[in-house]
Amino acid sequence: MTGQNKAAIIGGGVIGGGWAARFLLNGWDVTVFDPDPEAERKIHAVLVNARRSLPKLADVAMPEEGKLVFVASIKEAVMEATWVQESVPERLDFKQKVFADIQAHAPKAAIIGSSTSGFTPSDLQQGAADAGQIIVTHPFNPVYLLPVIELVPSSQNSVEMVERAMALLTSIGLKPLQVRAEIDAHIADRLLEAVWREALWLVKDGVATTEEIDDVIRFGFGLRWAQMGLFETYRIAGGEAGMKHFISQFGPALSWPWTKLMDVPELTDELIEKIAEQSDAQSGQYSIRELEQIRDDNLVGFMRVLKDNDWGAGALLNQYDKQLKATQPTAEKVMPSSQPLRLRDCQVLPSWIDYNGHMTEHRYLEVFSATSDALLLAIGADDDYVNNGKSYFTVETHIMHIDEVKVGTALYSTAQLLKVDAKRIHVFYRLHVADDDRVIATAEQMLLHVNLAASKACPAEDAVMAKLQPLADAHVDLPIPEKAGRYVGER
Amino acid sequence: MTGQNKAAIIGGGVIGGGWAARFLLNGWDVTVFDPDPEAERKIHAVLVNARRSLPKLADVAMPEEGKLVFVASIKEAVMEATWVQESVPERLDFKQKVFADIQAHAPKAAIIGSSTSGFTPSDLQQGAADAGQIIVTHPFNPVYLLPVIELVPSSQNSVEMVERAMALLTSIGLKPLQVRAEIDAHIADRLLEAVWREALWLVKDGVATTEEIDDVIRFGFGLRWAQMGLFETYRIAGGEAGMKHFISQFGPALSWPWTKLMDVPELTDELIEKIAEQSDAQSGQYSIRELEQIRDDNLVGFMRVLKDNDWGAGALLNQYDKQLKATQPTAEKVMPSSQPLRLRDCQVLPSWIDYNGHMTEHRYLEVFSATSDALLLAIGADDDYVNNGKSYFTVETHIMHIDEVKVGTALYSTAQLLKVDAKRIHVFYRLHVADDDRVIATAEQMLLHVNLAASKACPAEDAVMAKLQPLADAHVDLPIPEKAGRYVGER
Repeated sequence: MTGQNKAAIIGGGVIGGGWAARFLLNGWDVTVFDPDPEAERKIHAVLVNARRSLPKLADVAMPEEGKLVFVASIKEAVMEATWVQESVPERLDFKQKVFADIQAHAPKAAIIGSSTSGFTPSDLQQGAADAGQIIVTHPFNPVYLLPVIELVPSSQNSVEMVERAMALLTSIGLKPLQVRAEIDAHIADRLLEAVWREALWLVKDGVATTEEIDDVIRFGFGLRWAQMGLFETYRIAGGEAGMKHFISQFGPALSWPWTKLMDVPELTDELIEKIAEQSDAQSGQYSIRELEQIRDDNLVGFMRVLKDNDWGAGALLNQYDKQLKATQPTAEKVMPSSQPLRLRDCQVLPSWIDYNGHMTEHRYLEVFSATSDALLLAIGADDDYVNNGKSYFTVETHIMHIDEVKVGTALYSTAQLLKVDAKRIHVFYRLHVADDDRVIATAEQMLLHVNLAASKACPAEDAVMAKLQPLADAHVDLPIPEKAGRYVGER
Repeated sequence: MTGQNKAAIIGGGVIGGGWAARFLLNGWDVTVFDPDPEAERKIHAVLVNARRSLPKLADVAMPEEGKLVFVASIKEAVMEATWVQESVPERLDFKQKVFADIQAHAPKAAIIGSSTSGFTPSDLQQGAADAGQIIVTHPFNPVYLLPVIELVPSSQNSVEMVERAMALLTSIGLKPLQVRAEIDAHIADRLLEAVWREALWLVKDGVATTEEIDDVIRFGFGLRWAQMGLFETYRIAGGEAGMKHFISQFGPALSWPWTKLMDVPELTDELIEKIAEQSDAQSGQYSIRELEQIRDDNLVGFMRVLKDNDWGAGALLNQYDKQLKATQPTAEKVMPSSQPLRLRDCQVLPSWIDYNGHMTEHRYLEVFSATSDALLLAIGADDDYVNNGKSYFTVETHIMHIDEVKVGTALYSTAQLLKVDAKRIHVFYRLHVADDDRVIATAEQMLLHVNLAASKACPAEDAVMAKLQPLADAHVDLPIPEKAGRYVGER
């Protein structure tokens, strides 16, 4: 679902901007309508954040970014839109007016999602020309990174429309979660609201400052909740005796005295001032932009950990990579060429930087190693091949560092096959800066084909050789690289 | 604080076991008393988890594990203890009886911490022989990984005692957070209780299943809370207008209709059954042990990300590394030796494993690179040196892979200096398995001394040469390694 799709963003700001970024970076064209003269600047600020973080989550090249256009009316925004996302202020009458405007001009088949955190779809649909076209799709900030969307239909929405909405959101890497009943504030904000109430009491009563409350969360249960939720965490706490045991142990706490504090604290000026002052003391040394980037770097790191562990948000990202791969030319389609084979595109990630501010040395080998993996995939030495007990091992590597690169630099790597036989691949890799093709490092490697069970060299299967040999034959006339065949320190 | 310190754990189980693991792995001796015949098995199960995860958080060798002894009485447990941690069931009269027993036998200077999640210290201290010796130190599961401790004193506790408790907890890598007032359930469980109430309503009313609630958390705000808490996250949401703006926008939600749901849902058998069934459907395919290990791998990954970003729980870990380093022989103390210099100890981490189940190739270079760093530290080319504009860059590396290693294998690396001059260090590294000294890989490197601003080679400072030259002179009679001076594919 790329290229031809168009999303209309009605209402900019952090949420609308996050939606715009999510669509654009997934190859959709986006039109934005927001009467605020600051909207364009604000959305570009969100896009800067999104571009520096979202691509770091993919191990596959993302689609080419779509076109972004700011328009002067809802009409211009929604014409020919596949998806319309409303993110205007939380006033019901205002939202209903915006929907009327959208429905006057949008295609009948377009889906109109609302970012509302509080209203039910039935509230929103009141008086609409086509109630069944409007649905709640409530995202979480930052929308370009956090995948969950609370998707809330009413009885007016057809099953077909709900399924189409789910499929479209999934296609841009989101995790739509269909809420089973219409309630004010859906699911997450019910939970958040409850925490917010208690937190206000704690600050008001002087039990804890905003920083202390945040620390209890992020040094404690917040770490748990980034990968398992409330119930799965408590299931573990219940231990071998299970969930029932846990509830019957923990359940009685519900009637303990502190439930008396369920009143709503009054938001006096004094309380607001107290919170604002404590928050300044806690976070005031960082600008909002700095906090956003710290947050995004942390979130990217967490989601990449979950990806390695194929769990939660990381399992979703792995699925999304597969989905992206299916629409792209893959290493499996590498054809013999008289030029070195371009096998890997990537960019220098923040975690690749050393104390000198440059890409740290083992990350060069990581990229070369990923290039080997792409080569092996191209010759059919893939996961199935490994599962059948055979693989290639690296036995020897010689790296030359030629130039330095900094964070964010786009790179690509190529492979030149020097010599192959049934047991060996002797290969030479070059790592280029994408902008100017400059070579910043090279690696010469010897890969040995092994029987995994015996842990011994053995000939590669015929099917592999049938793909490998033509690639090598096509390179036979390429000059031997100057840096090949060197020993360390050779002049 | 290692070796001579002794902790007494009163009450085993998951929490007591977590405390035992935290103390043991930080070098304390531990005695455990729990009348449950299963306690020893349960605590060993927690220790298995702790040993496979906690050491992965340190970049410095942890102290040697302390001695663990199970004893038959509180008296035997608490004699000569520096710290006594009570983690018995949440019944006030029972806890008070246990404290009486502890105080009859423990040293007067021992600190008695209670793991209570609900009671105030004043509750616990009622009728105690020495009220000022008892304090609340409420941990979070898994105690061996999550650092936060709610430390709650009453007016009976002296400032000196509170400070001593804070220092002791900090010395074993924890983050004690002093709660400013005594309230039931302290801070975190007030927040958790609020979420639990709302979650029970959502399940009871059929709005969401346990899995859907968990997914809204872990694909959404849970990811945020693992690194910033409630207030800092909302500060960002407030954007440039700040916290005050956010509250005045979000604040009114407190009087919205869903606050009517602050009643406590009755925990009927039917509701308990519903939750247990949904939880089985959600997580039943994993055993509790599997879930624990998945959780721990995720937590370790997150905390290492935070460590890279020097933020939150990761900044704490970096401080802890410094603290560990201060008590250990460091690379700065490397003395000239006629043998290769042992510079780096580590173990194969789960994230280092490739699809063949072995340590992946770029991680070898990561260890060799860390060995270079240790060598540079040893010759005074440290952070200050870099900040003054000079450093060593790797220009060339030759790696030989000799054998494979699997996750958890303890390794060490050595450096043999082949040739040095004012601009160059030609060095040969070996990576050994700690158990049998077997060499599994080697690396030959050429490091070039550079002026960072000019990005050009230049002579090292005299102070560096004065440390480097004696190390190299001491190696002059070592035989040249067989694998040195090779080109790739040399027979």
